[in-house]
Order: sequence, then C-alpha cells, then structure tokens
Amino acid sequence: MHTQTKLYEGKAKVLFADDDESTLIQYFKDDTTAFNGKKHAVIDGKGILNNHISTKLFATLGEAGIPHHFIARLDPRQQRIRHCQIIPIEVVVRNVVAGSLTRLINAPPHTLSKGDRLTPPLIEYYLKDDTLGDPLINKAHIRVLGLASDTEMDTIEDITLTTNTLLTQLFADIGLTLVDFKLEFGRPKHPKPDEAKLMIADEISPDSCRLWDAISGEVKDKDRFRHDLGALLAGYQDIADRLDGIKPLPKSKTKARQPACV
Amino acid sequence: MHTQTKLYEGKAKVLFADDDESTLIQYFKDDTTAFNGKKHAVIDGKGILNNHISTKLFATLGEAGIPHHFIARLDPRQQRIRHCQIIPIEVVVRNVVAGSLTRLINAPPHTLSKGDRLTPPLIEYYLKDDTLGDPLINKAHIRVLGLASDTEMDTIEDITLTTNTLLTQLFADIGLTLVDFKLEFGRPKHPKPDEAKLMIADEISPDSCRLWDAISGEVKDKDRFRHDLGALLAGYQDIADRLDGIKPLPKSKTKARQPACV
Repeated sequence: MHTQTKLYEGKAKVLFADDDESTLIQYFKDDTTAFNGKKHAVIDGKGILNNHISTKLFATLGEAGIPHHFIARLDPRQQRIRHCQIIPIEVVVRNVVAGSLTRLINAPPHTLSKGDRLTPPLIEYYLKDDTLGDPLINKAHIRVLGLASDTEMDTIEDITLTTNTLLTQLFADIGLTLVDFKLEFGRPKHPKPDEAKLMIADEISPDSCRLWDAISGEVKDKDRFRHDLGALLAGYQDIADRLDGIKPLPKSKTKARQPACV
Repeated sequence: MHTQTKLYEGKAKVLFADDDESTLIQYFKDDTTAFNGKKHAVIDGKGILNNHISTKLFATLGEAGIPHHFIARLDPRQQRIRHCQIIPIEVVVRNVVAGSLTRLINAPPHTLSKGDRLTPPLIEYYLKDDTLGDPLINKAHIRVLGLASDTEMDTIEDITLTTNTLLTQLFADIGLTLVDFKLEFGRPKHPKPDEAKLMIADEISPDSCRLWDAISGEVKDKDRFRHDLGALLAGYQDIADRLDGIKPLPKSKTKARQPACV
C-alpha cells in the first residue's frame, strides 16, 4: 500500500510524492500498452524487470557523466528519482530500420530495407501528446510551439547521441543489437547548484528500446507484445540476465540481422 | 481533344508528352480534391483560373531569377513546362498558423493560436506519397530515404524562402495575406547547359496556397472547398482579378487576421 500522494499515473508507471519536494517515487506497473494505448495487457512481473533494467542502464550512463533523473532503486517496483518538469518531446534514435520507419521505406526510391543499418543514426522528435497520437514533429515545430529552447535542443541532441554510443556498446557486449530507443528529458524542478539543467527522465527499458539478439535476430523487446510474438517476459528476463552478467554472450556482429519472426 | 500521349494523370492536372522530349504539356482539370482525395468535386472553370494564376505567379518568380518549370501558357487550360523528374517531397512554408498546424497547437504549452504570425516562417517537408497520406518527415528522413541530396535540400530551402518573400510581397500589394503554400521541385530530365539543375515544378495556385483577405480575413483558397464555405470559384476569380490589376486594394496590414468563417 502506498501512503504517498499519487501525482501522476501513466500507462506503465505511477509517480508518487516523496518526503523531499525535489524528488519523486517512480512505481513500475505491469500494464503493457501499444499503438497509443489501443492494445493493453497486464503482464505479471514486467514492472519488476523494467525497474531492474532501467536501474542498470541509468547507473551505466551516470558513470559516464550523462545527466539523468535516477537516484536509487528502493524495492522491486520503485525508484527514487529527481523531480523534473518533463519536456513534452519523445526523442527517438534509430540505428537500424524497424518500427514506424518501415512505413516510409515503402515509398520510392526504396533505398532502405528493414534491418538496414543507419549511419549516422536517425534522430526523430515526436510531440508527447496521447490525444494527438504522439505525432512526428521537427525542430522548427519544437521552436515555434515553445517546447524547448534551441540551447536545450542542442544539449538534448548531444546527450542523445552520447547515450546511443554508450548503450549500443553496452548491449553489443552482451550480444544484443540496440535497434532504436526513445528518450524523454526533464528540467529539475528544484535544481541543486551543481546539477545539470536538463536530464534524461522516464525510463530506459525494453518498453522503450528495440533490442534484437545480435546473432539470431530474435526480438527481445515490446515488439513481442505489439506483434503477438509471445513470451514478452522471457525476452525482458533475458535482457536483465545478460546485463547482470549471468549469460555473457559473444560480441555482436556489426551488421544487424533482421528478425525472421516480425 | 488531345492527340498527345498522356504520361501522368494526377488529382487536378494531366501531363501530356510534347513534340520535344525536354518539355511537357500540363493540363489543368476542374477536379478539386481534399483530405488526400477523400473529398472530391468537379468545379467548372477552376482549372482555367489555376492555369491563369499559376502563369502569373511563375512569370513573377522568373523575373526575379527563381528557376521554375513554366515556359508558356498555351490556352485557357494548358501550359508548356520543362520536363522534370519530380522530387517526391512537398515543401510547405507557413507564415501564419492555419491548416494542419492548428492540430499541434492544441497540445501544451499552448504558445500559439490560429492566425498567429510565424517569424521566421516555418518550413515543413512531407513525403509525396498518396498511399501513405503524404506524411510529415524531417531532413534526416530525406537524407536516409535518398529523396534529395544535402546540396539539393540547401538549394530547395534557399529557393523556398526567396519565393516566400517575393510572393508574400506580391500578395500583400493586392490586399491578400499569403498564409502558407506548398512547393514541389523537379530536376530537368534534359537540362540545357545554362539551366538550373533544380526548379520549382507543379503549380502555384489557390489549390496549393492559403490566401486570406488582409483586411477582412476572408478565405479565398481551397479551404472554401475543404470546409464547405461555398463559392470556391469566386475566391479564385478574386485572386485572379487582383493579380490582373482589375481590383487593386489597399496594402495589407502586417498582422494577419484570423478568418471568422473557418
């Protein structure tokens, strides 16, 4: 039972007030949604795995000097995080053609195929707004809509690309291809004097990343739910186990393999 | 009757082969469509007005050194144009908040309202593909999809902004606010030695521009058809008459007025 005040409930997480107004408690639910909430299921234990994986990834990024909201994992389902004002932009980085990008490659001149590597990676910005279906926008929209300043966008792009480099290597070392992922950013509401004004917020987990086995191409992420491939939890557990070093695998090949099953 | 070979039929125009392979005949139909072809009507005389208006606008741009495909108006419905390979990008310039942009401003932080001026103008790129519904894309997509080179995109942006400056002034001089417009670009298939490698193609008409009376805010363009405001032809005729100098009006005010009727 939570004695804290619930401040916000999203599709997969709940934010509670903390004793200190500069921090929040982030609770990971088992709810799993796709296609802007049109598809929904409760998958027992998913929240625990996402809390575990997100903790590991934020810890790695923090060691490399990337500013983020994560402070500490409190229990299997909860983290303490910095209290941030979330910038309503979803930043997507694509290293390999998959997901919604496969729609665009159906048009001429057909230069790309699913599974092709994107060098340099492709960065996309989506307006974080469920009622509008999180539409794609560009930097000019971000400017005129007043979502973030040009300086903030430069910082966001820098952090995003460095994060991509770090996570791509981290996952490659455990036999996984980081196909694409989504980041959200926040501004600390009660910033400390020595703190970054902008930091990665939300979570980094198989809910927000596409991760394929580097050898077999097997999908390990939420696409197992989106496309009814089954065994979502087994995919998440495998990622968690590899991050824990229980199942270290050979290093990934540089060419991403397209999954046979999607 | 056309004795020429029909090469392409779009929603509002037909392209016929010409005697010379470096040119084409562009025929303006009366078909009027909106919402990716879901709404359709035949409005008697619309093609004649668009041919007339597009001729005037391309002539003005040509005098200012802007490269375009237009060569000569042949008769009320036909133009001779340079034979171009069309780049499958729709370039949209927005000077005032209207149309699909009004959807985005419904999300927080609500910094913009319909009718607000955008300074500098907002440039958007859409993938020209009816089956995909002409989705918004950004420059990174254009690069990875191989739609145009970075050099071509620099040229397209330069031509677009200069065209916007020229047309905004031209319309302001006849009491009209150029709210937004769409351009398409082509590469000449049989370029002459002294010719630009990239030029504005398609048409520039009230089918592809939003034009409001600068004083009353009355809509003069295809939004009359999109939103069932009636009297589409009267709006187009008014634009043609003003361009012909039949009805010169006072200079427009700098602040765009939002139309009361949309």
